[in-house]
Amino acid sequence: MIYLDNAASTKIHDDVLESMLPYLKEQYGNPSSIHRYGRLSRKAIEKARKQIASLINAEPSEILITSGGTESNNTALRGIAMKNPPCKIITSLIEHDAILEPCKKLSQSGFEIDYLLVDSFGMMDHLELKNHISEETCLVSIMFGNNEVGTIQPISEIAKICNEKKIPFHTDAVQAVGKIPIDVKELGIDLLSISSHKLYGPKGVGALYIKNGISIDPVILGGGQENGLRSGTENVANIVGFGKACEIAKINLDENMSNMKKLRDHMIKKVLDEIPEVTLNGHSKSRLPNNVHFTFLGVNGEDLIIKLDEFGIAASTGSACSVNTQKASHVLEAMGFSLEQITGSLRLTIGIFNNEKEIDQTVEVLKKVVKELRSVSPFKEKYSFRLN
Amino acid sequence: MIYLDNAASTKIHDDVLESMLPYLKEQYGNPSSIHRYGRLSRKAIEKARKQIASLINAEPSEILITSGGTESNNTALRGIAMKNPPCKIITSLIEHDAILEPCKKLSQSGFEIDYLLVDSFGMMDHLELKNHISEETCLVSIMFGNNEVGTIQPISEIAKICNEKKIPFHTDAVQAVGKIPIDVKELGIDLLSISSHKLYGPKGVGALYIKNGISIDPVILGGGQENGLRSGTENVANIVGFGKACEIAKINLDENMSNMKKLRDHMIKKVLDEIPEVTLNGHSKSRLPNNVHFTFLGVNGEDLIIKLDEFGIAASTGSACSVNTQKASHVLEAMGFSLEQITGSLRLTIGIFNNEKEIDQTVEVLKKVVKELRSVSPFKEKYSFRLN
Repeated sequence: MIYLDNAASTKIHDDVLESMLPYLKEQYGNPSSIHRYGRLSRKAIEKARKQIASLINAEPSEILITSGGTESNNTALRGIAMKNPPCKIITSLIEHDAILEPCKKLSQSGFEIDYLLVDSFGMMDHLELKNHISEETCLVSIMFGNNEVGTIQPISEIAKICNEKKIPFHTDAVQAVGKIPIDVKELGIDLLSISSHKLYGPKGVGALYIKNGISIDPVILGGGQENGLRSGTENVANIVGFGKACEIAKINLDENMSNMKKLRDHMIKKVLDEIPEVTLNGHSKSRLPNNVHFTFLGVNGEDLIIKLDEFGIAASTGSACSVNTQKASHVLEAMGFSLEQITGSLRLTIGIFNNEKEIDQTVEVLKKVVKELRSVSPFKEKYSFRLN
Repeated sequence: MIYLDNAASTKIHDDVLESMLPYLKEQYGNPSSIHRYGRLSRKAIEKARKQIASLINAEPSEILITSGGTESNNTALRGIAMKNPPCKIITSLIEHDAILEPCKKLSQSGFEIDYLLVDSFGMMDHLELKNHISEETCLVSIMFGNNEVGTIQPISEIAKICNEKKIPFHTDAVQAVGKIPIDVKELGIDLLSISSHKLYGPKGVGALYIKNGISIDPVILGGGQENGLRSGTENVANIVGFGKACEIAKINLDENMSNMKKLRDHMIKKVLDEIPEVTLNGHSKSRLPNNVHFTFLGVNGEDLIIKLDEFGIAASTGSACSVNTQKASHVLEAMGFSLEQITGSLRLTIGIFNNEKEIDQTVEVLKKVVKELRSVSPFKEKYSFRLN
């Protein structure tokens, strides 16, 4: 199998699994227990918290551990909103559903949600943000790198504007952390969401960075774990694995980034050169190092994925999560794409375990499969003159 | 080590870990992905859902998978409340903080919370419930078995009253599921919380049984996983382990229950016979099969735990979670205990991996340690005439 759906989920790194095993076997104490079993679990969590913090240059006390990126986003939005009701949240049209859906919910409770537009490359105009900020604004939440088309937003500029206006700035950095260098202090970020399983850690765990001094309302209440901000017995093994994954990501960041960019650009070039009627979506430069996103006109992306799957290649039309809601990509819609362009889209996301041979094989299969699908496409006539 | 803190967390069963490993290694697909990696994960989750449902005689479609018991409780309470605002929730004074804290929060948002009392054995009077139910009541939430003193409530009778009045009945059954037979259909339960790590499954996963036809408002929003009721990429490996743990628990239920009861009663008898000035707390008959809870007058429970820990015995004063909030047990307070009685309390919770030899050893150490602590107790004079 050639796995090119690393934006959906990644393989757990061997060393990560190794680090988890003791906590799945003999070290099963509840971190809140005061006997040695409990203390060992507590210690393991605090070590992981340091590893997570270190990857984004935060303090360990600024890391709130959650059940994943979605919970982190929910916590940031509702956590800040509920401290300042009613108020206005500024976000964008291309956010992940884990931002858009909580926003929709908040709008039903009297909060105002203001959605920034993007251009055809999925890029926001940070200067436009200034026009949207008002007295009522309590939070700006703009994603770091887009999960579908990979466009990286001008985070530093956005943060600067928010900092000047003293408005907390949250970024959903689930697709960016571990892939590109992120320094929350240098960038001026106030809240940032991370997901473990996007960076070769286990599923079911994530974090929300909350800058010291920023106060949020907890979403899940109970025993008072995580300083009262996230109750529930800690998922010790997964937290340990998440910490280890962050440590490894930090050590290998430059090398991985450069390797992935090379594979990414190699694939983009090959596909654009060798397959007719293809467009690369997203920004050409300000782009996640592992993201490739095309539109193959005249092809149905889902058919493409099923065909690729038959050839042992795992890919995606866009957000894996959108499968549950069965709707067309709101990201591509916001970028001004036609339904036909959206339908023909394919996301290939590279991981640290991929190599050039796999990319070459994938392009060969793509050529074949796209041609085949186009030959039976209902749009055949429309494009036939260009398909030979 | 002799581990007698199984109410705080349990060791993962070897077969459970075995079942998880493929999903921590090669089967890392996102269940929402449509390629085979994704489909394998999806299939694994649905198998687990059946195993979880089967343990409590629910339908798989009635099982909502969460990040743990605390989230399940939060989801039940807020989920029902937010569908019917404002309304009244009836609960009890001896619930876990994962019930009491969300209730406190809801009361700040205009919901009325009505707390039922318990007697000195931690037992509720179900007839009293009838007097509390009014037109405004939207939910009754009463725990199944108490996490501190082990008292099992008259769940069937409570459910019957709620069913008659057509009010949804939720029970936090985190300590009971897998230890005693629970049939949600027979008992007439509408919502029920389960935690994986209390029944030899992994941490970080749990479930909320929601009877078909009952509608709740989701707490965590996003990609629409779990039928839109709990978004976020599923914690596949832990869910698979949780399912396996439920399957094993079901197969061995009667045998485990009988073994644990034997060990429990053996320990209770030995301690009451061999150590002076000890009382057994909780109900003598309607009690979780693995719960032992004493008060040793004149002793500080925390000192006792630290001493036991030195002898390699893991125990607890009560709820592990209460360590985070550093407050006296609200359960024992509700049962009418004095601060001195509360201070002297010790919880020993038996698990399927314990044996009689361990219990005997623990009692020997307890005898020694209690005597030692009493000899330096500030209450020494008060009890000295009875301590010889």
